[in-house]
Amino acid sequence: MAKETSKRHVYLEDIPLDEAQAAFQAALAAAGWWQPLEVEEVSLAQAYGRITAQAIWAKLSSPHYHASAMDGYALRAQDSEGATETQPLQFTLVENWDTPPTEPRPIRPVNTGHPLPPWANAVVMIEHTQQVVLGNGRSGIEIRASLPPWHHVRPMGEDMVATELVLPANHKLRPVDLGALAGSGHATVPVYRQPRVAIIPTGSELVAAEKVAESGIQPGEIIEYNSLVLAAQVAEWGGLPTRWPIVPDEFEAIQTAVRQAAQDHDLILLNAGSSAGSEDYTADVVQSLGQLLVHGVAVRPGHPVILGMVGSDKVTRGQGDKVTDAPVTPSPGHPVTLSPGHPFTPIIGVPGYPVSAALTGEIFVEPVLARWQGQRPFQPQTIQATLTRKVNSHTGDDDFVRVAVGEVNGRFVTTPISRGAGVITSLVRADGLVRIPRFSEGADMGSEVTVHLYRDPRDLARTILAIGSHDLTLDLIAQFLAERGAGRLASANVGSLSGLVALRRGECHLAGSHLLDPETGIYNQSTVRRYLPGEDVVLLTLVGREQGWLVPAGNPKKIAGWAAAAREDVQLVNRQRGAGTRVLLDYELGKLGIAPEQVRGYGREEYTHLAVAAAVVSGTADFGLGIQAAARALKLDFVPLAHEQYDLVMTRQTFESERIRPLLDLLNDDGFRTAVAAMPGYDVSVMGNVVTVNGR
Amino acid sequence: MAKETSKRHVYLEDIPLDEAQAAFQAALAAAGWWQPLEVEEVSLAQAYGRITAQAIWAKLSSPHYHASAMDGYALRAQDSEGATETQPLQFTLVENWDTPPTEPRPIRPVNTGHPLPPWANAVVMIEHTQQVVLGNGRSGIEIRASLPPWHHVRPMGEDMVATELVLPANHKLRPVDLGALAGSGHATVPVYRQPRVAIIPTGSELVAAEKVAESGIQPGEIIEYNSLVLAAQVAEWGGLPTRWPIVPDEFEAIQTAVRQAAQDHDLILLNAGSSAGSEDYTADVVQSLGQLLVHGVAVRPGHPVILGMVGSDKVTRGQGDKVTDAPVTPSPGHPVTLSPGHPFTPIIGVPGYPVSAALTGEIFVEPVLARWQGQRPFQPQTIQATLTRKVNSHTGDDDFVRVAVGEVNGRFVTTPISRGAGVITSLVRADGLVRIPRFSEGADMGSEVTVHLYRDPRDLARTILAIGSHDLTLDLIAQFLAERGAGRLASANVGSLSGLVALRRGECHLAGSHLLDPETGIYNQSTVRRYLPGEDVVLLTLVGREQGWLVPAGNPKKIAGWAAAAREDVQLVNRQRGAGTRVLLDYELGKLGIAPEQVRGYGREEYTHLAVAAAVVSGTADFGLGIQAAARALKLDFVPLAHEQYDLVMTRQTFESERIRPLLDLLNDDGFRTAVAAMPGYDVSVMGNVVTVNGR
Repeated sequence: MAKETSKRHVYLEDIPLDEAQAAFQAALAAAGWWQPLEVEEVSLAQAYGRITAQAIWAKLSSPHYHASAMDGYALRAQDSEGATETQPLQFTLVENWDTPPTEPRPIRPVNTGHPLPPWANAVVMIEHTQQVVLGNGRSGIEIRASLPPWHHVRPMGEDMVATELVLPANHKLRPVDLGALAGSGHATVPVYRQPRVAIIPTGSELVAAEKVAESGIQPGEIIEYNSLVLAAQVAEWGGLPTRWPIVPDEFEAIQTAVRQAAQDHDLILLNAGSSAGSEDYTADVVQSLGQLLVHGVAVRPGHPVILGMVGSDKVTRGQGDKVTDAPVTPSPGHPVTLSPGHPFTPIIGVPGYPVSAALTGEIFVEPVLARWQGQRPFQPQTIQATLTRKVNSHTGDDDFVRVAVGEVNGRFVTTPISRGAGVITSLVRADGLVRIPRFSEGADMGSEVTVHLYRDPRDLARTILAIGSHDLTLDLIAQFLAERGAGRLASANVGSLSGLVALRRGECHLAGSHLLDPETGIYNQSTVRRYLPGEDVVLLTLVGREQGWLVPAGNPKKIAGWAAAAREDVQLVNRQRGAGTRVLLDYELGKLGIAPEQVRGYGREEYTHLAVAAAVVSGTADFGLGIQAAARALKLDFVPLAHEQYDLVMTRQTFESERIRPLLDLLNDDGFRTAVAAMPGYDVSVMGNVVTVNGR
Repeated sequence: MAKETSKRHVYLEDIPLDEAQAAFQAALAAAGWWQPLEVEEVSLAQAYGRITAQAIWAKLSSPHYHASAMDGYALRAQDSEGATETQPLQFTLVENWDTPPTEPRPIRPVNTGHPLPPWANAVVMIEHTQQVVLGNGRSGIEIRASLPPWHHVRPMGEDMVATELVLPANHKLRPVDLGALAGSGHATVPVYRQPRVAIIPTGSELVAAEKVAESGIQPGEIIEYNSLVLAAQVAEWGGLPTRWPIVPDEFEAIQTAVRQAAQDHDLILLNAGSSAGSEDYTADVVQSLGQLLVHGVAVRPGHPVILGMVGSDKVTRGQGDKVTDAPVTPSPGHPVTLSPGHPFTPIIGVPGYPVSAALTGEIFVEPVLARWQGQRPFQPQTIQATLTRKVNSHTGDDDFVRVAVGEVNGRFVTTPISRGAGVITSLVRADGLVRIPRFSEGADMGSEVTVHLYRDPRDLARTILAIGSHDLTLDLIAQFLAERGAGRLASANVGSLSGLVALRRGECHLAGSHLLDPETGIYNQSTVRRYLPGEDVVLLTLVGREQGWLVPAGNPKKIAGWAAAAREDVQLVNRQRGAGTRVLLDYELGKLGIAPEQVRGYGREEYTHLAVAAAVVSGTADFGLGIQAAARALKLDFVPLAHEQYDLVMTRQTFESERIRPLLDLLNDDGFRTAVAAMPGYDVSVMGNVVTVNGR
């Protein structure tokens, strides 16, 4: 024990982001690495997407001769003088090429692209001619209009003249560029070598996804996927990633892997072990092989970043090697060439949390790969949006907040996705990032912020934003809309009441709600009237569904009825305040006269049905209130207690908008209704019912 | 002769674009092909950029156990009750896992990601603890604050709960998506099979770029590059292209290639032979093997498009084969599987002109590949821009006009790049397309048009748009700016005078000009005063340069002095009206009393120095006035006649703007000045001189 804890480095540095980046760039520059990589010639068939390393000048003119621009006949323009519709002129068909024909008015067939005979200087389109037999019995062609010189001729160099600039340097090659290169006499093109990036996952607790799929997973084991994300990022940014097999948390093993990677890679991403725990060896490994530049950057997520340079015994390294999934071992048979004069290889210790790892890629890796390929760092598109919640930030840190963005009533609104750095789905679902700069304490609700978008802003214009209670049907809607390419549904789960508040504030298009009015037994209407007074609102029923106790399979504690909530031998997991399920529970407990204090676990709040189910599965709670589908999802038993109604609440303006139409179509769609009805406890007979509140 | 012409099909159809697309889709739908392709499972390491064929649901929860979110110690939250800064509580270090410890206040070290012992429900960060030796001699930990339950714990399912929707169908996989898939228990992902597209270049006059690079090219030979462009387009749109070797213009050879391609490809692009010339076999080949749906679409460029379906003796076809550059021949050892029930393969006869070919890809191929991968057709970003020139259009055609776009004084202006379908550089240089719909006669100067952009609109914000006289130094500026990532120069060559007109109209940032005032001998100032009256204008001298006769090497006709223009035995090639070079010529001819009518070839106008040089090289003219660099570029002789000054004209507002700064920096840059001085006849001593007209 003492040994384990004594090895811990307790403190990380807090280098400001810009200083950390500057220190890394300075170290790269000192090693001659802060510039584009070497040039390699690739064939045009392999060049799509690569980046020109030099300006490319035309080697040939295009066309490289005077060419016919039409299918027709070549002639001398001056011979056509005087031809009119009523007084056509007759030409004699000849086969002469170099030798000027002796016939008066010679004419020769040419197809598009054919060279013009040197004696000719114009082309008449075949459509404007007629075949005739001449007086002398020879074949002839009649034309009915005079032609200017160079008519329907593509003069030499019309497209490109030899020595002209075809493409500048640092240009990412598009399909048409390959045509221009070939057309100007090039068969290859000089491009920057692609950066080779080694990605080394470390951690004794890590298991590969393939192994998990084959043989399952044990508590404490973690599925290794940061290397997948980092490798795809590297590929996206033009690099060649090499994924290492998982290296256990052993100093020597990690050191060996880094030393090996340094031999034939331009950059090493070591993930993770970059923090200061007892098994965090990255800093020590970097120090043992070179120089630790930065350990800890004042950025969140992503704080425990390491930046450094490691030495290696360099060997020459080849260019244009293929991506491999296994480390490349240099061997005499497979010689590799490396930029001369780089005794050190840059290394980035990437934090282990998946959100931190992905953002470290964007913040630290992308600018280096861009520089090595003659590009400026990627600048995402930005929009201005109104913040719907206050964001707090550590004063000393640059804070990258994942946000959802919606376009509601013609303005952009944005909501932080307030989940931890371990939640990869917060990045998957994010529409963008808001950067809260250092020395700022955050951003207030209602303030305008700049969102760096992950998504084409046009996608936002066709996105329906739902904030409110969660129901699995919303997932199905999202899936069906995506499958049909008919729009997009983004949803945030905050509970019924918070959804109605968001709707009132114009922060979403619709709010999922299942709020029971205890006095009338009618769902949603009275609350909507209270929260959206005077607003012309439509309540569109999505489903009827069953609520009940979620209990472990076999219901070992025999939990039954609402009264079970007060039992002393069982532990509840509750929903958050404002959730419709919580309202239902409180209502039923009230009817039975059970006070919250009598319910063990009443204070433990989760935000979704599935989170409640997960708590029961894990054994940290004995039961919770939720829908049957959540029970089935996690193989729990379900004790039915009540039927309820789940509505989508929206303004009439939204209800009648084009944006919402694909969703309305879906509610009448047999395939969709069947899919919903297949979920246990779901009643689709009420689907599509409309009630108006405060309506006209 | 008679035989050659008699085989010509003179007429193409003129099917409207939307009808042609609908006919093709209907035929695909009838064959069961207007839907996504089959599903294949690929490993996550291969899945980046592929498209999900189904909704993906979580197989595992993530985390799949309650995990520590920090490096620290696991404990029971209730044991920490009462701990404060002044009254710390001491815990006993234990190693218990499953068995609840018997010690009072047990505590156990955990690292980030480790499972919590089942008896614990909270984690204290290592930074908030202190190691102590307890009274009983055991190792202990002191904490100074009480913890709520689940503090610094990532509860099971925090990220994803098993059965939750991870990704919808038809989703293009990004790096973070791969992490979410692996984290939820997937090692593979179902994606659509990539469409296999055969690209068959036909034409006896075609030669491969590699062959040209090796052994040069003869008149009449055409470099085959449409297959390069089409293959890169197919790859860009998610397909797997197979480029066929060049097939000669022979019916049987083409038929054999098409039949072979139909066996194991989803789509065939046959290029070209789609028109109605004597060697255009595509229509006949399609008819011989299946059904010709459309021959000729009312779209420009791209009119002679063929759409059809060809039969094949299908064999089963494998999935996920690699891209090959050679056709794949099915063999028993290499079995290939094909979608059942598709006896026909769609085929597109792609026109031969490169601009037509590339646009046929965008208009006809992309929507099919998108559909086969569950995507909507690509929609480029659009902007509204003011048209600076009238565009005429064939009334019956959908017209796709390549345009340059500039952002000048806060508004977008757009100019058609009025070059033929054979000019691939018109696409390379285009910033976008303007579509002039059928039944419209065009668009007027000054009208607002929608531009479908080829370029990120943000690039336009950093682009300097130069319209006016051409000088090779402008190419060098473009190249230097690109190499330094310091902005972008786009230029259009219209001559000095038209450039000043464009500047007056606010259609460009600067105009290159070398207009001699015959009365003063001073360049540009008087014309600028006349054309931009009252405007505060800056004339920034770019270079001094030499003008002279461009003559064939050795100057066989001994052309010398301005008076040579009047010789009866020599043919001039002139520049267009308004070009500074034309003004110079007219001035000198006037001094000598030579009338334009006395100069043979005076009426033949070219738009650039290089075009004049090209006319001399090709022998269609004996001489022309131009700069020495143009003579050297095409290995001509140069007879010096005059020195002139080439200025960049701009408003003071532009001169002082951020956008122009990279260009100003360049004029003081040694590397740039050296590169310009290296061009023959260039004088950089005047570079950067500034003269103000109408200034403050």
